[in-house]
Amino acid sequence: MITGKNYIGAAQSATGSKTYKTFDPKLNLETEWTFTEATAEEIDNAVSEASSAFKLYSATSATEKANFLRVIAQEIEALGDTLIQTYMKESGLPEGRAKGERGRTMGQLNAFAALLEEGSWVDATIDTAQPNREPMPKVDLRKMLVPIGPIVVFGSSNFPFAFSTAGGDTASALAAGCPVIVKSHPMHAATGEMVASAVLRAVEKSGMPNGVFSNLNSSGIEVGQQLVMHPKVKGVGFTGSIKGGTALYRLANQRDEPIPVFAEMGSINPVIALPSALTEKGDDWAKNYAGSITLGAGQFCTNPGLILGIKSSSLDNFIKVLGTSIEELEPFCMLHPNIYNGFENGKKELSSQGGVDVVAEYSAEAAPNYAKQKVLTVNGANFLKNTKLHQEVFGPFSVVVRCEDATQLAEIIEKLEGQLTGTILGSKEEISSHSAIVTALQGRVGRIIFNGVPTGVEVCPSMHHGGPFPASTDSRFTSVGTSAIKRWVRPVAFQNWPQEALPAALKNDNPLGINRLVDSKFTYDKI
Amino acid sequence: MITGKNYIGAAQSATGSKTYKTFDPKLNLETEWTFTEATAEEIDNAVSEASSAFKLYSATSATEKANFLRVIAQEIEALGDTLIQTYMKESGLPEGRAKGERGRTMGQLNAFAALLEEGSWVDATIDTAQPNREPMPKVDLRKMLVPIGPIVVFGSSNFPFAFSTAGGDTASALAAGCPVIVKSHPMHAATGEMVASAVLRAVEKSGMPNGVFSNLNSSGIEVGQQLVMHPKVKGVGFTGSIKGGTALYRLANQRDEPIPVFAEMGSINPVIALPSALTEKGDDWAKNYAGSITLGAGQFCTNPGLILGIKSSSLDNFIKVLGTSIEELEPFCMLHPNIYNGFENGKKELSSQGGVDVVAEYSAEAAPNYAKQKVLTVNGANFLKNTKLHQEVFGPFSVVVRCEDATQLAEIIEKLEGQLTGTILGSKEEISSHSAIVTALQGRVGRIIFNGVPTGVEVCPSMHHGGPFPASTDSRFTSVGTSAIKRWVRPVAFQNWPQEALPAALKNDNPLGINRLVDSKFTYDKI
Repeated sequence: MITGKNYIGAAQSATGSKTYKTFDPKLNLETEWTFTEATAEEIDNAVSEASSAFKLYSATSATEKANFLRVIAQEIEALGDTLIQTYMKESGLPEGRAKGERGRTMGQLNAFAALLEEGSWVDATIDTAQPNREPMPKVDLRKMLVPIGPIVVFGSSNFPFAFSTAGGDTASALAAGCPVIVKSHPMHAATGEMVASAVLRAVEKSGMPNGVFSNLNSSGIEVGQQLVMHPKVKGVGFTGSIKGGTALYRLANQRDEPIPVFAEMGSINPVIALPSALTEKGDDWAKNYAGSITLGAGQFCTNPGLILGIKSSSLDNFIKVLGTSIEELEPFCMLHPNIYNGFENGKKELSSQGGVDVVAEYSAEAAPNYAKQKVLTVNGANFLKNTKLHQEVFGPFSVVVRCEDATQLAEIIEKLEGQLTGTILGSKEEISSHSAIVTALQGRVGRIIFNGVPTGVEVCPSMHHGGPFPASTDSRFTSVGTSAIKRWVRPVAFQNWPQEALPAALKNDNPLGINRLVDSKFTYDKI
Repeated sequence: MITGKNYIGAAQSATGSKTYKTFDPKLNLETEWTFTEATAEEIDNAVSEASSAFKLYSATSATEKANFLRVIAQEIEALGDTLIQTYMKESGLPEGRAKGERGRTMGQLNAFAALLEEGSWVDATIDTAQPNREPMPKVDLRKMLVPIGPIVVFGSSNFPFAFSTAGGDTASALAAGCPVIVKSHPMHAATGEMVASAVLRAVEKSGMPNGVFSNLNSSGIEVGQQLVMHPKVKGVGFTGSIKGGTALYRLANQRDEPIPVFAEMGSINPVIALPSALTEKGDDWAKNYAGSITLGAGQFCTNPGLILGIKSSSLDNFIKVLGTSIEELEPFCMLHPNIYNGFENGKKELSSQGGVDVVAEYSAEAAPNYAKQKVLTVNGANFLKNTKLHQEVFGPFSVVVRCEDATQLAEIIEKLEGQLTGTILGSKEEISSHSAIVTALQGRVGRIIFNGVPTGVEVCPSMHHGGPFPASTDSRFTSVGTSAIKRWVRPVAFQNWPQEALPAALKNDNPLGINRLVDSKFTYDKI
């Protein structure tokens, strides 16, 4: 079933000579499959087919695109247990997670289908003509969002389904009307190929143009770089490291025609334990956070890697309970030896910084590639002066900072790099009594949480999964939730355009029945 | 009245040693005023004050911000004829234009005030909790747009009011809740200082925090570069050349924390004359376009610099009438000798390209700095192979391309760089019979016009003034119209946030009475 080939539209191709294999981290062995990396010619073919497909696909109706997305979800489900087993083999993740993530991925595809069927997402805005206006007549002007062209999606390591081949980036780009070329993640190329085959069956079954979807293999950085530099590529979606995302972002900026790169990158997701959270619920939060830090071997971009409190006996107690709770948990298998080694190196580097003490460390034997969780602590002054301690360590790891007082805590937050999330633990009253801290936190994050954990990212219109750099390269856009579609479109205004030639969304009689801003009023009405 | 100093918040400062003067292009003489360029320390002071002001200003209510914008408009008007005379002296533009542009500038400020008072622009999106959802409870999640921080605005040369000191970039940023530091345009520094003084009076009268607005003098590129690289600056608005805008865009991208640069740059605004436009209304369109090409000495970013038609006797006739009509018009004074020289060099360079013929050229004597209009013609093959001919020549200048057939015309459009506008002249039937051309044009522009001229940019919600690169650096955003506010904000999601601590826009009882997306339905209702 796994061919190891590139999918250029419906065609399979493996003309290159560079091959690689994926890895089963639980068995600590290579898998049986071999993948052939895409050549420059195959890259050019995939992009050219996508560019040709764009002419047809961008004019495809919302209903047809919605049907296409729903068929993709069905085809993924139809791969059944073989897909789940492949996912588990290539990721080391358990069956429950595999099935949950598959459900999430299908849910995303169906959510975008529903968004298309509802239709108002195109932001139709109409200002009718005023031919008698003085001193100048006013023209008829109507604006809506249109797709920008072929999009390259970089699969992530940590979500082989939900942020990869047919994940949120792909689903949102296809929903927008943009063809997608996936740069398959090398750690789960077989899972990727299976999902790609499902997408391609959906292309055929729903009569979409060939080239609207391609899947290219790659083990290094060259294929991705060539894709980003290809003149016919018009946008990029990426989920991964700060280093990788920033490099692609800067590369795309140097093109003759710069293109947007929406990279969702690292984050340490600061959690602020205000006094009452520690005095009244310290033990509960400590146990809760031991679970959140280790969830999925800590391999989430919303993993809480930084916990801040004001020094006190209740903070000492919280740290103690967090330490004992987290040491009791059994290690999980990580995605890949490279991820495991990165985690080990990260732990080592941060543990060796000045003023750092170890709170907890799993010390028993563990199988190869199993992450041994660790928690450190440091005082506020040391944390402030050493930005090494702000670095994300991808895995079950966190740093607890003992701040001198609320002022130092606010200062630390203000100086933090941009984050996907920030969390406040405390009472409602403390939100106003600690407003400097809360305001500072809101200024550094894309999502702010009250009395919860940052892990768990709901897929819905009000989700914002992004944040000030380096959490993401463009804080104005989200990679999770239906608003993610807004990354792949741009507005076009039609001036004095004849009714019969206008897109349906902008016609007077509102045939799509969508919500529009007409002469500065929101309405579902006809004109 | 003109001090020549920098305005750092309310304080005036001129500690630097580098000075410069502005120029009266009609008299062909320097003006009486001398300006002192901002020093590195003054730049840092202005940005630091803006950063401090942001804490207060970002929390200012919509009503207070709206009042502030309205007072700015009143204070500009209160400068009366002195301001109009200063504008005319520094720009060479006539009184009607000065007053019209002042009216437009005040209109923009008032339009953003009205947008704030209506309030729905924050895109409030709410998904209420579902505590009993299976398999996982759903959290309460609410999202809205919040301001990003201090913004640097580069004044443009060609709109001393509407795209400069208190123009669209400044008005939209202040409306969003972002402080503004203006890098004053060196060609109209006195006009800029007067407008800045009006803004600062409005700051005081409406009780806004000091530092919410500063105005810095600069004659070279250094002040702008230092502003863009300042770590506390969070965004940039620019209107000007492709070279200048792209340089700032790439500079900002190299910062440790990259920031968005919204540069609205050059455009040649292709106009496609379909057959019926030439056979039925050729003379009318020719006369009309003679006027559009020379309007305001051609110093508009929407100036029609490229007209395309399919070779025919009616195209020949159109070219002939365009030529005779445009030669009859009297030249206008350009903004500055540098602009005049750039125009002369641009005309010379394009006229010397292979296969180019002169259609019309104003040949009588004219006063210094008065632009002598010129029109060239070339066939489609030569235009296709020589991208020099795609360059914007800023001034009353246009190239008419005789295409071999509709296929070549579509090919030319597809290969054009991104444009602010594109225009179709013809019949309604031709929009469908020439769909390849129309679709190609829509793919390259931000605004598409039917049977009109591209000059004249309405300020309203449905305007899109931007386009694929190099028309602008970010085709998703407009610099004209109320949507321009979206450049200076980012979404923040509040998860399980207590009602009393939520921003007004997100509270259950909808105290602002705005349109919100609640559980995927648009409504003005309470929850």
